Amino acid sequence: MAYDVAALEKLIEQFQKIPSIGRKTAQRMAFHVLDLSEEQAKEFADAIIDAHTKIHHCKVCHNLTEAELCPVCASATRDHTTVCVMEEPRDVLALEKTREFNGVYHVLHGVISPMNNIGPDKLTIKSLVERAASGEIKEVIMATNPTIEGDTTAMYISKLIKPFGVKVTRLAYGIPVGADIEYADDVTLMRALSGRSEL
Amino acid sequence: MAYDVAALEKLIEQFQKIPSIGRKTAQRMAFHVLDLSEEQAKEFADAIIDAHTKIHHCKVCHNLTEAELCPVCASATRDHTTVCVMEEPRDVLALEKTREFNGVYHVLHGVISPMNNIGPDKLTIKSLVERAASGEIKEVIMATNPTIEGDTTAMYISKLIKPFGVKVTRLAYGIPVGADIEYADDVTLMRALSGRSEL
Repeated sequence: MAYDVAALEKLIEQFQKIPSIGRKTAQRMAFHVLDLSEEQAKEFADAIIDAHTKIHHCKVCHNLTEAELCPVCASATRDHTTVCVMEEPRDVLALEKTREFNGVYHVLHGVISPMNNIGPDKLTIKSLVERAASGEIKEVIMATNPTIEGDTTAMYISKLIKPFGVKVTRLAYGIPVGADIEYADDVTLMRALSGRSEL
Repeated sequence: MAYDVAALEKLIEQFQKIPSIGRKTAQRMAFHVLDLSEEQAKEFADAIIDAHTKIHHCKVCHNLTEAELCPVCASATRDHTTVCVMEEPRDVLALEKTREFNGVYHVLHGVISPMNNIGPDKLTIKSLVERAASGEIKEVIMATNPTIEGDTTAMYISKLIKPFGVKVTRLAYGIPVGADIEYADDVTLMRALSGRSEL
């Protein structure tokens, strides 16, 4: 292309690296940044750097935090005997938004996936086993995604921690609220049927 | 929300400020940034700052550039007697991609819009009139968007520069290539009809 501004091109490329962001969207985002004031642009850049320097993993649950312990692990009002095991910090955000769960978390930062060369040692499973071994945990809720890899990881972990006398549960599978049974896939319907509860 | 990481929240907010980016997408983007290496995050932040400090307006056509003149205005192989007037730098990018236009540009950085309190003096119209008055321009192609404001701006400018003996044209309106006539709106069909050409 004859018309090419290097600095703009670089910025577009940065946005384009974000998953599911295409060329056109990246362009629109870059132009938005150009439209910002000098100060706002600096704020944006600082937010990126800050997120990197300030945020690290909670030493207990491995969720993202700015302090040594995440707010959930540090909270005295949460039930520290119930641990919800999740794949990613974004899953924690989703569950926290429901305001229904009062226990604590354990973030795996991935799932066991031999295809992608991710073994149990690349996740935070060892630390979860140590938490279970400490005897302070009564129930572990496996809330990995309902995929083959999520299921496998849940099974693997449950085998490791059951010997410590911990109750291990799994999130219910079924038809999403508001969805149409007509359009539900076979596997979901099958799971909804086998997991039916009494009215 | 009990679980809230300030630095992460700030980053999500920054992404959310981008038009058409919602909370969920902003969150996904912020997590992408967290997944970057320290170095990559710095590159991203630098790209934002660089875009702001390095990019300014070409002194002739007001398009974005890092030099005094944009590559198009500085090019000896482009036809400097034909000027395409566009609303935004992103429009120039779109036209350049076709590789069909060999003239130069003039970027207005907006359209006349009394509703948004944007008068002709807030655009680069004065500079365009000066270019026309210099006698170096033979044709001005009005390529503002086919909206009421784009049309009005095109009309306004054409009245200002016609006295200098400049030929003023407008991009053709019609049915987009590949589109279905069945689904074309009335106004587009009307314009396609009145702008019909001989086969």
